[in-house]
Amino acid sequence: MTVRLEGRPIADALNATSRAAIASGLSPTLASVHRDVESPFSFYLRGQAKAAQALGIGFRDEGVPLGEGPEGLRRRLRALDTDERVDAILLEHPLPAPFDFRAAISLVRLEKDVDGVSPASLGRLADQAPMHVPAVALAALEIARHYGLPIEGERVAVVGRSETVGLPLALLLARRAPGANATVTIAHSRTKDLAAALAGQRTIFSCAGRPGLLTRKVVPEGAAVVDVGLSSVADPSRPSGQRAVGDADYADLEGWASGVTPVPGGVGPVTVAELMASVVRAYRFRRGEAT
Amino acid sequence: MTVRLEGRPIADALNATSRAAIASGLSPTLASVHRDVESPFSFYLRGQAKAAQALGIGFRDEGVPLGEGPEGLRRRLRALDTDERVDAILLEHPLPAPFDFRAAISLVRLEKDVDGVSPASLGRLADQAPMHVPAVALAALEIARHYGLPIEGERVAVVGRSETVGLPLALLLARRAPGANATVTIAHSRTKDLAAALAGQRTIFSCAGRPGLLTRKVVPEGAAVVDVGLSSVADPSRPSGQRAVGDADYADLEGWASGVTPVPGGVGPVTVAELMASVVRAYRFRRGEAT
Repeated sequence: MTVRLEGRPIADALNATSRAAIASGLSPTLASVHRDVESPFSFYLRGQAKAAQALGIGFRDEGVPLGEGPEGLRRRLRALDTDERVDAILLEHPLPAPFDFRAAISLVRLEKDVDGVSPASLGRLADQAPMHVPAVALAALEIARHYGLPIEGERVAVVGRSETVGLPLALLLARRAPGANATVTIAHSRTKDLAAALAGQRTIFSCAGRPGLLTRKVVPEGAAVVDVGLSSVADPSRPSGQRAVGDADYADLEGWASGVTPVPGGVGPVTVAELMASVVRAYRFRRGEAT
Repeated sequence: MTVRLEGRPIADALNATSRAAIASGLSPTLASVHRDVESPFSFYLRGQAKAAQALGIGFRDEGVPLGEGPEGLRRRLRALDTDERVDAILLEHPLPAPFDFRAAISLVRLEKDVDGVSPASLGRLADQAPMHVPAVALAALEIARHYGLPIEGERVAVVGRSETVGLPLALLLARRAPGANATVTIAHSRTKDLAAALAGQRTIFSCAGRPGLLTRKVVPEGAAVVDVGLSSVADPSRPSGQRAVGDADYADLEGWASGVTPVPGGVGPVTVAELMASVVRAYRFRRGEAT
């Protein structure tokens, strides 16, 4: 019996907390900066706008015309960084060339880097004194906490080592902090034997973006799977012609894994809710309030 | 047959490269900042002074009188950070209260943080674009490279998760870079079952500072051990009354592990040589030269 680890109840609880903070008088504003074109980020952008509106969080859709290029993007980020009305800045990623995500996000001060992806934010996390942490990493850990998946002192694996997802999640899991303290294995595309790397792991966080990667061949029996991967596959039965899938082969893991987060409906909604919670924290950070 | 993985030949090779850089006209200077008292750091301080002198690297012993307190330490670091004659700054660590190591080292700019331990330096490493990296982590990886220990694509473990040793080493090993690309497991004091976490690991980097931790009970047969741990134990037969030991139980691992670095004579001398190589890099970074 494999439990379906739904994200919706967790997102609802996070949103209730954010809503209460707004009701108490906070008025945070998120600026979402992106190239003004349709891209894989567009779906996430619409989710942010909708969530912000539902919670009463200010939202600024900051599309930078492609013609303005990397310098236009930098100009926009500098302006938002010093804009007193903006508490939190999110930047589209990954950003294709000629844009340089690292150089661009480094223009945003620590307090406003709401998705915790600048080198400075990552440094604070690695130094065990995080300010903002990537929402997707917070979401994965919160799902594990909510469903009581084995984490503290246990063997857990993160599949994927990107600077924006896998690595920050691994650092968060290994942290000296209640609910963390995991023995963490970081596996990735260069791992020679994934099954050997995952043998004995109790909880597996998959951030590879490779549909069908997680099957009984590599996931140990009884392990829980938090599926952070997100890919588009062709689906002629959908109006859009495609659908979102994770890394896990659900049919194959049914009756084998102890639990699996669905895609969609697992990490996705919790990530948006965590991002909104981070926007509320950003408002407080800027005013020197503890959270 | 367990190979003794000596550090001295590696240190000699690194020093030859540093010496050649100095001979070509570089004149780097290292400032080593510490509380002006005898401490566990004093031994390392003397090693730095001796190595710098042998290589022709400028060395400034910057002892801050205890009476000046944390503010005196900060004043000294700020002065050295803006001092054009200083290329590289090392700060004693760990620093006991009332000193705050993180706050203090954050006063040092990225280019001069020669041991790569500020949050900004750690962030660059986590973001896969390192500037300076802790010398001890570089030393551990260089020993593995020199002796051809299994790293790339292989399962390796780091025991210990300190911000100055274990975590940066884990990030360095997991990096997308030739000689790295390891599948890394981070184990630590909260790991429930160390033997299970180390099962199947090909190379084990131990940074726990717990003498006798690594025995046949936890190290898999045939694994290589790079012993980064360093502790003092009482030894009445020595003039000092104590001697340095690592985490490995050498007698127990003899004939079981494929190789073990000795303590002293393993990671220690390579760390000092890597620090000096980083001082040379710091000189180049400050002048905008690639390395």
